[in-house]
Amino acid sequence: MAVGGNALTGEGQSGTYPEIAANAAVTAVPLAGLRDQGWQIAVVHGNGPQVGNLSMQQDAAEHDVPVQPLHQLCAMTQGQLGSVLARAIDDRCGPGTAVALVTHVRVDLQDPAFAQPTKPIGPFLSEHQALELAAARGWTVVEDSGRGHRRVVASPRPLEVLEVGAVRTLLDAGHVVLAAGGGGVAVAVHDDGSVRGADAVIDKDHASALLATAVGATELYLLTGVDCVQLDFGTPRQRPAHHLTPEEAARHLHDGQFPPGSMGPKIVAALRFLQDGGHRAIITSAELLADAAAGKPDVGTTIALPQALAGQAS
Amino acid sequence: MAVGGNALTGEGQSGTYPEIAANAAVTAVPLAGLRDQGWQIAVVHGNGPQVGNLSMQQDAAEHDVPVQPLHQLCAMTQGQLGSVLARAIDDRCGPGTAVALVTHVRVDLQDPAFAQPTKPIGPFLSEHQALELAAARGWTVVEDSGRGHRRVVASPRPLEVLEVGAVRTLLDAGHVVLAAGGGGVAVAVHDDGSVRGADAVIDKDHASALLATAVGATELYLLTGVDCVQLDFGTPRQRPAHHLTPEEAARHLHDGQFPPGSMGPKIVAALRFLQDGGHRAIITSAELLADAAAGKPDVGTTIALPQALAGQAS
Repeated sequence: MAVGGNALTGEGQSGTYPEIAANAAVTAVPLAGLRDQGWQIAVVHGNGPQVGNLSMQQDAAEHDVPVQPLHQLCAMTQGQLGSVLARAIDDRCGPGTAVALVTHVRVDLQDPAFAQPTKPIGPFLSEHQALELAAARGWTVVEDSGRGHRRVVASPRPLEVLEVGAVRTLLDAGHVVLAAGGGGVAVAVHDDGSVRGADAVIDKDHASALLATAVGATELYLLTGVDCVQLDFGTPRQRPAHHLTPEEAARHLHDGQFPPGSMGPKIVAALRFLQDGGHRAIITSAELLADAAAGKPDVGTTIALPQALAGQAS
Repeated sequence: MAVGGNALTGEGQSGTYPEIAANAAVTAVPLAGLRDQGWQIAVVHGNGPQVGNLSMQQDAAEHDVPVQPLHQLCAMTQGQLGSVLARAIDDRCGPGTAVALVTHVRVDLQDPAFAQPTKPIGPFLSEHQALELAAARGWTVVEDSGRGHRRVVASPRPLEVLEVGAVRTLLDAGHVVLAAGGGGVAVAVHDDGSVRGADAVIDKDHASALLATAVGATELYLLTGVDCVQLDFGTPRQRPAHHLTPEEAARHLHDGQFPPGSMGPKIVAALRFLQDGGHRAIITSAELLADAAAGKPDVGTTIALPQALAGQAS
């Protein structure tokens, strides 16, 4: 199950601890419900707003305290959000149920994403600040949708969750496992065989599809701020898509129905999961999770092969 | 095995990532050696310098980014140092061997430590700064050994590692487990039954003794910057103590031989571990760890019952 970093620091929120804890509690309710029904659950949380905040804090004190590399900030948010989510889940399921792992995900240094960073992180900057930081730190900065300049980092494709054995072991022991938070701490194999941190932010939806496949999950839940996928979004023809075959989803993706920053990665992650043997991928909100998992008609968006969809179509 | 936060950010170092990674690599060498000999190992790291740095970074950006509570900073350092140590151990033992858990440790809100905070964290402050922050944030600040004022926080006794079941499961599955880092994220049970973060920093030596007992460890290694315990330290009568019975160690502790900020907590942790059924507690440096574990005479300090000591005395 993928849970967005924006679901933990909501729109208009600044990311105080009480805010994050209250949001985590909301997510924990349907999750605990699924667990009570006997589901084994691994949770991959996002960390966009939180890693952005940490990055600003690092920069603000840079004259007194060494700035840590991006992969370490990602590790820090795994600690932070892993703790908050574990507390929220344990509140519902009992102490020690949830276990958060500091998780590393391997990427390839030859991934084209390193040559062409695209993922914006951190605050908006003036052009002057942006150019200065680009020169001082080797950052790539871009103008972002008329709102100022922002640092962009590589978002390479995740290839392997190093801790997948531990995740499986803990799932089998009955834990709710929090893993690959923020997409995982990115690492890459270097020429000398060493595995070192890589300055990249992995998309958490893609990481969740990889983890789901690796642990043999049958279903992948991609939670988001909206109830379901919309087609022709923002036009008079806008309509909800409650059931899509992989072919339909791929066609809509190809037709540009799902923008890269929002629904796009979820559709790609869902398709990859199904291609690798998964049964169903469900895109919905935390509020509708229970109903979507129960297979209620016209709740959320289920992507599955026609025969799997046939059983639940309304 | 307890590893000091000072072993990860050495004296005179500021805590850059290359420094921390290089120090972790040094610690990983003897640890991997023990693992090769068939030991099951859980590692509890300290986080003093790192949580101090994070705290300064949080303060520096406080007008733009909400400051997180102390227990969340502790969770962040579990992510950070868990990642660095896992990479260093995996470099020696193979990918996926080490697993770092975000770990919570229960304390009692009635613990007298909350009424009398003693553990200094973060930077030295001027008296003016100190009084201002005390007023603004409710901090307790004290004058620290003539070097300025510092924030002090509660360091209550750890009572329970919430994730102990997961630690046991992962040890049994052959992992090197990193847990209760920085003493664990402190949590306390409130009147409504909820388990919430507590603003405290748990001593990592005490947490390691608790964890060692809980997983049924026979030996507890407390790594530090010195080779062994010294008696009459700093006097002409200074001499190394390579073997101590619990009675001897307790007597020296009572006589004020071990100051509260350094060797004291290690002796207390060792005594608690032996009292709770442990066989041997060893205080030594990372460099001597392998020899001490092999029972070489006059290496490190072993605290054990007389019959256990008899087998190895020189």
